[in-house]
Amino acid sequence: MMTLQNDTFLRALMREPTPYTPIWIMRQAGRYLPEYNATRKRAGSFLGLAKNPGYCTEVTLQPLDRFPLDAAILFSDILTIPDAMGLGLYFAEGEGPKFERTVRTEEDVKRLPLADMQQLQYVTDAVSQIRKALNGRVPLIGFSGSPFTLACYMVEGGGSDDFRRIKTMLYQRPDLLHTILEKNAESVIAYLNAQIDAGAQAVMLFDTWGGTLAHNAYREFSLAYAKRVMAGLKRNNEGRIVPRIFFTKGGGLWLESMAEIGADALGVDWTINLADAKRRVGNKVALQGNLDPNTLFGEPATIEREAKRVLAEFAADGTADGHVFNLGHGISQFTDPAHVEALVNVVHRASARV
Amino acid sequence: MMTLQNDTFLRALMREPTPYTPIWIMRQAGRYLPEYNATRKRAGSFLGLAKNPGYCTEVTLQPLDRFPLDAAILFSDILTIPDAMGLGLYFAEGEGPKFERTVRTEEDVKRLPLADMQQLQYVTDAVSQIRKALNGRVPLIGFSGSPFTLACYMVEGGGSDDFRRIKTMLYQRPDLLHTILEKNAESVIAYLNAQIDAGAQAVMLFDTWGGTLAHNAYREFSLAYAKRVMAGLKRNNEGRIVPRIFFTKGGGLWLESMAEIGADALGVDWTINLADAKRRVGNKVALQGNLDPNTLFGEPATIEREAKRVLAEFAADGTADGHVFNLGHGISQFTDPAHVEALVNVVHRASARV
Repeated sequence: MMTLQNDTFLRALMREPTPYTPIWIMRQAGRYLPEYNATRKRAGSFLGLAKNPGYCTEVTLQPLDRFPLDAAILFSDILTIPDAMGLGLYFAEGEGPKFERTVRTEEDVKRLPLADMQQLQYVTDAVSQIRKALNGRVPLIGFSGSPFTLACYMVEGGGSDDFRRIKTMLYQRPDLLHTILEKNAESVIAYLNAQIDAGAQAVMLFDTWGGTLAHNAYREFSLAYAKRVMAGLKRNNEGRIVPRIFFTKGGGLWLESMAEIGADALGVDWTINLADAKRRVGNKVALQGNLDPNTLFGEPATIEREAKRVLAEFAADGTADGHVFNLGHGISQFTDPAHVEALVNVVHRASARV
Repeated sequence: MMTLQNDTFLRALMREPTPYTPIWIMRQAGRYLPEYNATRKRAGSFLGLAKNPGYCTEVTLQPLDRFPLDAAILFSDILTIPDAMGLGLYFAEGEGPKFERTVRTEEDVKRLPLADMQQLQYVTDAVSQIRKALNGRVPLIGFSGSPFTLACYMVEGGGSDDFRRIKTMLYQRPDLLHTILEKNAESVIAYLNAQIDAGAQAVMLFDTWGGTLAHNAYREFSLAYAKRVMAGLKRNNEGRIVPRIFFTKGGGLWLESMAEIGADALGVDWTINLADAKRRVGNKVALQGNLDPNTLFGEPATIEREAKRVLAEFAADGTADGHVFNLGHGISQFTDPAHVEALVNVVHRASARV
């Protein structure tokens, strides 16, 4: 393997000193880039893109060719695991992801298999190819949905406004939900370890929907399984620690308990002041975030002002190390790429250690 | 006016002692009740119902005839104010509220009038009729959307997943958004004071979408205008204080600053432990909440357990006064009314002061 030329991202995740604050952007390979849309068109469909390692490699590298980002993230879908459990992932045009089969009854839960790792080889193949293509430029992040977030889609059968079906299960048949979560956790561990074996140099667990839970239910149904995942992950690969990032969108109230599960860094959204977040997690974890993606609809001067505010909030206690700059959610498809460039540049420039 | 027979709700909002913890339920007059659906059918449409004081009175009282709730809330829509600014509120079947005209350009903002209070007479007429019909059983709550939440609908033209248009305005033309918010705040003050004059005995400001903002934007674009509203409200009516409740859904991180704006009570959603919330707001405000509405999909034994947990969290410091029990969001239309009865009963029984 090529030597890593830029390890600021990995160092920041471990709260080691870096010459500037590294930045990457959730969903950085995506629809706001015309070159992504061109690849997707060639692929024929979103799944045609996501299940083809060549296309995945192509789109993963696209944002890096435009912007001096400090990390690449595997291009894939959050729902590969339930698909590999046989639920039949599909995308209806203009709607979100859907499953042909849902997991709602005792019988559904009982016969739910672990994810078939052979069916997920397109993902590990993509990881290997991307690592080769990156050739040591920046580290590659692998990822998975959290056990609870995957369960949301599996029980609801797709996205949801109110999470009525999974919460009905949670309050009526918590035993069934626990069984699903156990299977999901075991599958996520195997999946992320396979990504690490294939070359992922950091991993991120996306708990997109944990923030919709009551605080006690969050601990029992989301955090406990995220912790189990962390405990099952390989710690080292290629002679280096593989840092883990955990992100619960809307989880700002729970940072103290999130900092205890074995993650090296926590993702945080824009509702929290990073100075408060840092005070609350102490020396336990690094922080990743937290600009509102909608800030990128402002003019470059506004983007610069807001990015500097985020940097200053993190460094309010005098140290800028241990911060990975990011948005607090995926970038909008309506974003002007020139505004992303303005953001990346200001973060690097304004955070340069003197 | 009849003497108020049950003032536990008003007393709890002022953190005075009560014999038990009062309870009401957001959207308690609503689609989960067959009698509500029957009235709505007679009214022909949602707006036919909401704009008719007789129907409003009928549905406001329906939940009180079923359950021993401790407050009634005016049946109305959150978007009456923009409608009375001439934006043309309508409901497309199966979709949410929409406006015929949006407020996006400098010209739109300039010509936006204050709400025409004469056009809102159906609301104040409803308040008067409901007070008469209540005949002193329980207090009547008036309400309005917050200036920012109203602005979301006015700029987006309806509901939104990403609030892209209003956030684009916020980051590109904050001056325009401030002008809208000033007009909204002035209109909300006139509207709530008219409700108070007509007989509302407490008022609630619903900041449904403030929680989508970055923490600094929340203070500037939502909280500042909520504070302005509080300062403009009549403090007393009929010889009694008219308590004010402020609720920002998803605002649990900001309770300290929310407690400073002149509200008597803060609504809180289910993501926060009430013991933490109470510690953070100190003696400044009462708290209203905070059961996840989806808990009501559980069996009565589960509802009892969770309701007792919420009560115990609030009373963890030894005092149960200053708590109004509620859900953390409106009740789902799919809720079994028998489960609401179980909730109201357990809250009264389990909170009885000994």
